[in-house]
Amino acid sequence: MEEELYNQIGNNSNPNGEEEEEGDPESNTLNQPLVKANRTLSSIPLALVGTKVSHIESLDYEINENDLFKHDWRKRSQAQVLQYIFLKWTFACLIGLFTGLIATLINLAVENIAGYKLLAVGHFLDQGRYVTGLMLFAGANLGLTLVASVLCVCFAPTAAGPGIPEIKAYLNGVDTPNMFGATTMIVKIVGSIGAVAAGLDLGKEGPLVHIGSCIASLLGQGGPDNHRIKWRWLRYFNNDRDRRDLITCGSAAGVCAAFRSPVGGVLFALEEVATWWRSALLWRTFFSAAVVVVVLREFIEICNSGKCGLFGSGGLIMFDVSHVTYTYHVTDIIPITLIGVIGGILGSLYNHLLHKVLRLYNLINAKGKIHKVLLSLSVSLFTSVCLYGLPFLAKCKPCDPSIEERCPTNGRSGNFKQFHCPKGYYSDLATLLLTTNDDAVRNIFSSNTPNEFSMFSLWIFFVLYCILGLITFGIATPSGLFLPIILMGSAYGRMLGAAMGSYTSIDQGLFAVLGAASLMAGSMRMTVSLCVIFLELTNNLLLLPITMIVLLIAKTVGDSFNPSIYDIILHLKGLPFLEANPEPWMRNLSVGELGVAKPPVVTLQGVEKVAKIVEVLRNTTHNAFPVLDEAEVVPQVGVASGATELHGLILRAHLVKVLKKRWFLTEKRRTEEWEVREKFPWDELAEREDNFDDVAISSSEMEMYVDLHPLTNTTPYTVMENMSVAKALVLFRQVGLRHLLIVPKTQASGMCPVVGILTRQDLRAYNILQAFPHLEKSKGGKAQ
Amino acid sequence: MEEELYNQIGNNSNPNGEEEEEGDPESNTLNQPLVKANRTLSSIPLALVGTKVSHIESLDYEINENDLFKHDWRKRSQAQVLQYIFLKWTFACLIGLFTGLIATLINLAVENIAGYKLLAVGHFLDQGRYVTGLMLFAGANLGLTLVASVLCVCFAPTAAGPGIPEIKAYLNGVDTPNMFGATTMIVKIVGSIGAVAAGLDLGKEGPLVHIGSCIASLLGQGGPDNHRIKWRWLRYFNNDRDRRDLITCGSAAGVCAAFRSPVGGVLFALEEVATWWRSALLWRTFFSAAVVVVVLREFIEICNSGKCGLFGSGGLIMFDVSHVTYTYHVTDIIPITLIGVIGGILGSLYNHLLHKVLRLYNLINAKGKIHKVLLSLSVSLFTSVCLYGLPFLAKCKPCDPSIEERCPTNGRSGNFKQFHCPKGYYSDLATLLLTTNDDAVRNIFSSNTPNEFSMFSLWIFFVLYCILGLITFGIATPSGLFLPIILMGSAYGRMLGAAMGSYTSIDQGLFAVLGAASLMAGSMRMTVSLCVIFLELTNNLLLLPITMIVLLIAKTVGDSFNPSIYDIILHLKGLPFLEANPEPWMRNLSVGELGVAKPPVVTLQGVEKVAKIVEVLRNTTHNAFPVLDEAEVVPQVGVASGATELHGLILRAHLVKVLKKRWFLTEKRRTEEWEVREKFPWDELAEREDNFDDVAISSSEMEMYVDLHPLTNTTPYTVMENMSVAKALVLFRQVGLRHLLIVPKTQASGMCPVVGILTRQDLRAYNILQAFPHLEKSKGGKAQ
Repeated sequence: MEEELYNQIGNNSNPNGEEEEEGDPESNTLNQPLVKANRTLSSIPLALVGTKVSHIESLDYEINENDLFKHDWRKRSQAQVLQYIFLKWTFACLIGLFTGLIATLINLAVENIAGYKLLAVGHFLDQGRYVTGLMLFAGANLGLTLVASVLCVCFAPTAAGPGIPEIKAYLNGVDTPNMFGATTMIVKIVGSIGAVAAGLDLGKEGPLVHIGSCIASLLGQGGPDNHRIKWRWLRYFNNDRDRRDLITCGSAAGVCAAFRSPVGGVLFALEEVATWWRSALLWRTFFSAAVVVVVLREFIEICNSGKCGLFGSGGLIMFDVSHVTYTYHVTDIIPITLIGVIGGILGSLYNHLLHKVLRLYNLINAKGKIHKVLLSLSVSLFTSVCLYGLPFLAKCKPCDPSIEERCPTNGRSGNFKQFHCPKGYYSDLATLLLTTNDDAVRNIFSSNTPNEFSMFSLWIFFVLYCILGLITFGIATPSGLFLPIILMGSAYGRMLGAAMGSYTSIDQGLFAVLGAASLMAGSMRMTVSLCVIFLELTNNLLLLPITMIVLLIAKTVGDSFNPSIYDIILHLKGLPFLEANPEPWMRNLSVGELGVAKPPVVTLQGVEKVAKIVEVLRNTTHNAFPVLDEAEVVPQVGVASGATELHGLILRAHLVKVLKKRWFLTEKRRTEEWEVREKFPWDELAEREDNFDDVAISSSEMEMYVDLHPLTNTTPYTVMENMSVAKALVLFRQVGLRHLLIVPKTQASGMCPVVGILTRQDLRAYNILQAFPHLEKSKGGKAQ
Repeated sequence: MEEELYNQIGNNSNPNGEEEEEGDPESNTLNQPLVKANRTLSSIPLALVGTKVSHIESLDYEINENDLFKHDWRKRSQAQVLQYIFLKWTFACLIGLFTGLIATLINLAVENIAGYKLLAVGHFLDQGRYVTGLMLFAGANLGLTLVASVLCVCFAPTAAGPGIPEIKAYLNGVDTPNMFGATTMIVKIVGSIGAVAAGLDLGKEGPLVHIGSCIASLLGQGGPDNHRIKWRWLRYFNNDRDRRDLITCGSAAGVCAAFRSPVGGVLFALEEVATWWRSALLWRTFFSAAVVVVVLREFIEICNSGKCGLFGSGGLIMFDVSHVTYTYHVTDIIPITLIGVIGGILGSLYNHLLHKVLRLYNLINAKGKIHKVLLSLSVSLFTSVCLYGLPFLAKCKPCDPSIEERCPTNGRSGNFKQFHCPKGYYSDLATLLLTTNDDAVRNIFSSNTPNEFSMFSLWIFFVLYCILGLITFGIATPSGLFLPIILMGSAYGRMLGAAMGSYTSIDQGLFAVLGAASLMAGSMRMTVSLCVIFLELTNNLLLLPITMIVLLIAKTVGDSFNPSIYDIILHLKGLPFLEANPEPWMRNLSVGELGVAKPPVVTLQGVEKVAKIVEVLRNTTHNAFPVLDEAEVVPQVGVASGATELHGLILRAHLVKVLKKRWFLTEKRRTEEWEVREKFPWDELAEREDNFDDVAISSSEMEMYVDLHPLTNTTPYTVMENMSVAKALVLFRQVGLRHLLIVPKTQASGMCPVVGILTRQDLRAYNILQAFPHLEKSKGGKAQ
């Protein structure tokens, strides 16, 4: 069978063929059945990355135990092991340090830009020059949006959006191209500053998580792709496993920097982002988060002494409600349940509508760069007009002299903005709208101010931010999801509190906090990490039990409608995320049946002809090939000559490496260990390389041989063909595999010892159901 | 080979042989080589459980995908799935509820018993009758200790100690006998009350975790072993997987109840206790913890109105230091580092010394029940004399009139105890010693009282609690480790703070908190969960960054000396805990080599003779047997007749079930599905049963057949014989296996398709090194 395949491909050899065949299967007609058969099971691994359709690959989290690895590992001295450990911790510290610094930079820039903008607008308002004020406001916002959007569109399309779904996919084993480069990071930083300062309804939280991950990835590989530091120590980090750990640290540091919430950051990384988790990693992540907090703390101390321009009001705790005392009453169970239920419904509704909007935006964005920029600018213009114009609708409210705070104010921040009102009056809607998003949250969370905001203003605020939250997220700028949801949620929470009136003794500021929490849980479906983030945001431990109950109710209600917003985005982008739990119907299908739906597996011999390798690389898109050997003849146990046995699995990247290095043998023989060691340093093999267009192999070289044994991973994980898909999936996901070999139940001479290879795509429920549609109906129910 | 084994055992059949052979391998001489060969690799699975040596078994966390399971699962209706989900959440709620109630009960009982005891002692002190006071104090303590100790020794030896290591082992897959029964729970509750009220240097925290787990286990199985409720709904929980989830919830609820720290409880379960973790479980655990907090909160509200006798001072936050404001200074890095380093050193020193003491205690405890009780009583007497006598050594200090608190007091609690001092003076040592442990912690944590305790008193307190901490833990009463360590740590922290004097502006109370945290991290080696527990204990978010740094330093320092205290206890008890990371040298060993060191595997035929089954059960102690089948003859691919293939794996418990139910066939045939379904309800098969002494099988029955196919797990996980032990261990531990089959690299007719079975014991580094001592030297270094 294998021989047949070889001939088939050999006859159609096309030495100058393009590498692009996977994108265009029709270019090689004889190759077509292979690809087509493949489709019966796997969808093509394409994903929408930063509004561009790209090829995606899986990551090698499994240790490639080939001879070279074993040798390298054996010869590692104690000193090298210490170097490795030292570097791991140094990186954890540096990730925290840089993330903290960049978060401070973004905060400073946003607060100053937005602050001066609002001051100037306030100046015109004072003079009654409302139209000039609008022009300035909208113009400044448009300019900032333009910068953010053009940067994103032209230099780094992957910097658009929050980045969290892609990080989640990366840690699950999906390599999204161009996600963690230096350009992406810089665009993300500048774009974030622009977009947030432009007053758009988006946060810097998601982008900070992405920035933290970029820092981690850049540190691990020693700098940007084209200017890497070739430091010997760094070679230990030149593999997917260590990079994964660094990126986990980076994402936790990002959340920590965004919310100034170290424990919440670690838990967020654990609950939402990471797929695999070890307690050693927990510890290192925690260290990164601690460093971030220390850095932030230092800068806040410096800024409190007034050296940071317009920045300086916030402490380490962002929205402090620690002075709210809350006594528990049994009757409070009704408002608390209500908040949770409504939060869950609104959250899932938001997910549903955002999904529709994002599909629409994909169509618009597909039309070209200009369309993307124009879309961003329209959203910015709409936002500016609403933020500036709507406060005119609200009635002016008289200042309450019993409240200590200054009223009215007309500067950058403050809880009682004068806007167009006469002296002694304030505009409650301007307090919420004509300010930075952070200040808006602070104002709406403010406690012991039950009559500050009128119901009418809260309704306008809520409806406006619902609309903005839906239309802003998909534009081509870095955009976080946390803040829009917090804004929406706090508005509805405060409205609910006002509506409850005297029924409950819960403070309206507390209602706003709980509303924000419930909508987050209803949309993002996190519990423990959200709870800790809210605890650290608000610094009030007494609220913990009610926050927990609200979160649990909101998540339960949300889960009964649709998946979490991140899952929706993952699906929309086409990232092949592997879920932890197998579907129930997977128990009724064996991997053997799955293998039948796939094309026959392409195998190589232990000592293989160069021509065969070139053919296989050209005509398939597989990333690994089983290497077979002739079994040793052991007459007494009845192994006949000619029987083949599995030697292991070789990666495409390593085959390309062999071709590039021209490590060819003139005769068919097995090599000694020193021969291969001289040619291939182990750390070089860890690099991903699959482009061999520039390798020209002469026809005499084509007839030479390659000894694949030393490069083969001799210990690939295998399953028997009668294993159920459910259990194979558990193995695949728990151990973090890229390829899983299917071996036959009964072996015999002449039979191939490998029946098939399973990859991530083959084990995804969606793909299996395409090939076996009857399974879905066979059984509903839930996996244990 | 298999045939040979059969004959060997068959010739020595011993139908009336005892089941006790595993304990006494010499009883059957021909059986000896089997057991002996086994020993070359595996140590016998014996563990010290509650000062008794017991057999231990592994748990079945893998889903046993046999025909019956598949059938049962297929026919489960949507309603049944909903029942299951509903029950899961109800259980999570009930676990929280009961744990909260029992925690309240224990707290109330301890505070009242200890309170009245201290009041009476105070009464005698007032009158100057010091000796009568001592007699009363020591007598009451002896009585309470006697109750706790006798209960433990006579009724539930497993209730002694904290129970956390055994729970950790259970969640790792090791079933310690009699750990989660009703008797154990009741003894643990009453014993805990007695031991803590007796003023022994132990806490109720560890026991509460155990109690939470007992509640979870009892709920899951529907009551105590002999009075189970046979409710149909409960059958879904009659398996090891669901019981594991419940126990995880229970342990989190226990920590939450102990420290009133919901997030800390969940994280403790996650970081320290649980081996496998799913995000669905995180959510359910969180729910349990939330319920606990609500229950505690309700009772605290009730007690605050004075309805709980002497209880009522503590709020939801145990040791509130929220009013300590801390400003960060760069110079503080020195004291913070110092606390961390000393905490790490002291913590590992404590681990080291406790290990020695526990070994000594094991010798004493082995001598019999009377010795155990006497040991407890001596420790109690020593504790009483020290607590009562030492305060006489301290000088009386004058009350500071500027402090608002009452001074001196002579009641049960209070920060300035009069003891033997004249009016207007207080004894600082009595404040720390002659009180409950909780109050002692509260007093030593008290802030803004820099001169309250003299250095001399703190030294005495520290040294005394070091001694007590070492000698108390191993006695036969329920005893937690948290509180002794907190007491030691807070003393040394406060001493360090006093020694630092004016160098630092950090409050001495804060030093005490950090000292306690550092010693905990130095001994228990947790980071994130400890940090959150301390955050929730002290309610001061500003301390988070320095707490984190102290914990990280202490853990790092501690880790460089010895393993964590729980690991030491696990090792001491002989529980075969499977670590997450493979040792580096495991990459150099293949599972095939490991298999060679084991006896040949004992296999069964798909349709097997009853006699063979009886023999196999009698003469081996294995818990699972591979079931082989003749391969179907497929001439074109060359499978010769007579070739065997692997059908699956059958559990010993299921074989015993077959014998008990006498499900015998008169002829050698395969059965229909309905035949077996009528006989074996799936949920019954989940029960553990391996005693078949009472089954008498006639010689005619011995000649009958059993069709093992429907009972066989057809999808066991397998590894090829050339797989490295490191990777096999990763698979074993990540997927949560009990048995892992080794299949040969090359198969041929006549060869057995299974080369060996790996169990937990085979994969433990310690056991492998016993059989392959050269491996240890081959390579030091650290696993990636």
